[in-house]
Amino acid sequence: MSEECIENPERIKIGTDLINIRNKMNLKELIHPNEDENSTLLILNQKIDIPRPLFYKIWKLHDLKVCADGAANRLYDYLDDDETLRIKYLPNYIIGDLDSLSEKVYKYYRKNKVTIIKQTTQYSTDFTKCVNLISLHFNSPEFRSLISNKDNLQSNHGIELEKGIHTLYNTMTESLVFSKVTPISLLALGGIGGRFDQTVHSITQLYTLSENANYFKLCYMTPTDLIFLIKKNGTLIEYDPQFRNTCIGNCGLLPIGEATLVKETRGLKWDVKNWPTSVVTGRVSSSNRFVGDDCCFIDTKDDIILNVEIFVDKLIDFL
Amino acid sequence: MSEECIENPERIKIGTDLINIRNKMNLKELIHPNEDENSTLLILNQKIDIPRPLFYKIWKLHDLKVCADGAANRLYDYLDDDETLRIKYLPNYIIGDLDSLSEKVYKYYRKNKVTIIKQTTQYSTDFTKCVNLISLHFNSPEFRSLISNKDNLQSNHGIELEKGIHTLYNTMTESLVFSKVTPISLLALGGIGGRFDQTVHSITQLYTLSENANYFKLCYMTPTDLIFLIKKNGTLIEYDPQFRNTCIGNCGLLPIGEATLVKETRGLKWDVKNWPTSVVTGRVSSSNRFVGDDCCFIDTKDDIILNVEIFVDKLIDFL
Repeated sequence: MSEECIENPERIKIGTDLINIRNKMNLKELIHPNEDENSTLLILNQKIDIPRPLFYKIWKLHDLKVCADGAANRLYDYLDDDETLRIKYLPNYIIGDLDSLSEKVYKYYRKNKVTIIKQTTQYSTDFTKCVNLISLHFNSPEFRSLISNKDNLQSNHGIELEKGIHTLYNTMTESLVFSKVTPISLLALGGIGGRFDQTVHSITQLYTLSENANYFKLCYMTPTDLIFLIKKNGTLIEYDPQFRNTCIGNCGLLPIGEATLVKETRGLKWDVKNWPTSVVTGRVSSSNRFVGDDCCFIDTKDDIILNVEIFVDKLIDFL
Repeated sequence: MSEECIENPERIKIGTDLINIRNKMNLKELIHPNEDENSTLLILNQKIDIPRPLFYKIWKLHDLKVCADGAANRLYDYLDDDETLRIKYLPNYIIGDLDSLSEKVYKYYRKNKVTIIKQTTQYSTDFTKCVNLISLHFNSPEFRSLISNKDNLQSNHGIELEKGIHTLYNTMTESLVFSKVTPISLLALGGIGGRFDQTVHSITQLYTLSENANYFKLCYMTPTDLIFLIKKNGTLIEYDPQFRNTCIGNCGLLPIGEATLVKETRGLKWDVKNWPTSVVTGRVSSSNRFVGDDCCFIDTKDDIILNVEIFVDKLIDFL
């Protein structure tokens, strides 16, 4: 079959034959997790740069809040103007080698009973430490009893200092039946847009979590975008039309990591069929947008990254 | 051969056997172009976010200054507090569909004799329009005579409105002998760190320019990084040790676009040999750094992206 690219009108109906697609996701649920999922807000070490009402709302919508090392400084600073506010937004965990955590911030959160875990290994990133911790929190009763045992408070909560979290995680995963694990919705702030190798590292995590711990549903939120992975072989992206009209701008189908084939899209402004896409050749569908009335279908030969532009000052009205 | 990864001391000597490597580049020259090159500062439509003294210095160091469409608003706003300053920093060209250029800014630059070229096609990006224009400026006497002819001022400088620049460029390249073209050092501000599909589009341009117009030496500058392409089969990156010590932080070897093999690195904190790297598998060398005393050697099977962290407030002392 030869490749095709067609320009659609601004709004189109998507065929009802897509109703039975197995892979479905809802755009809004990336930020507003489903009640039947475990959910975590992960704050990475970059200036928090979204409107406060939105931040507070997202905080409330997530069960667990984790700061990666110096991200605790960012949270502390973000809430700087109001001490009564800061005490209301205490993360559950701070984890990392703690080199970038300021003493003032360490003392504040320590005093207020935040679980602070030191992990010194330089062979994994703060992101990986956080992800292992989050999985342990939801899936390991042993880990939670370690943490809740106050006798362990002075000894890094009973967790070996170098890479105890990884060891506990590896032990746990040996007996974990992934298909029985409750999905973990993981919204990460601050992973994209800072130092560029860190941005690319964040993107690798979309692929590796999908491969190695597929009960995680990871999405990055930036001041301009949601960024997440679309599984190969067909995904239906659903949304409320009003939400799309108000909060969503452009999108891009981004073959970061490997060239692939877009077998079919339905519901984009520029829909394609049998369309080879590659960063190296420069054939990448960017500055596209959703025109399907309440959904869009994307079918690629390999997993691919999707970014969706969001208007952060409008989101709050829909959460 | 099996893969290797070794951790080096903070400073090491690099073997003299690398002196004859053909592919050489100097880190500082990405910002401070060589006298014998044509040089362009390209401003893309994102808030300008580097210290003013550095911006003024970089401006002076480049022969040509081009604003991509709404980037002219950004330049205008950046120089907002001082009218005498704004008149000193007039770009040579503004080009794009001009939809995002504000009327006030259009009138200001028009009045001050900036060449403003409208190109309406939606099948190429502002970036591509700029790159074709820059090549025409340096390599096409016909184009320059069009532009300098004042009779053309009212008719888009005699350039067809939809895609005249692309047509002129394609005609020119038919007779252009690439090996005889003077290299064009192209430093781009604002391509990375905004909307994520635009960031990825910018990265594709590193590959496509290297393939289709290899006389361009493109580098993106962000508030945290320089981002550029390393050609396959061995490149020696040279730097003044003092410059490295003062202005350079971490780096990452980023196989965006395709998995590849790092055949050898020499002079990184974590040097590798025969090391498969891929965004999909998550094996990416990030948070690395230059420890070679005055150079670092990188040899990959395919072209690869390198980011180098810069301390923008320190750079000015070395330019």
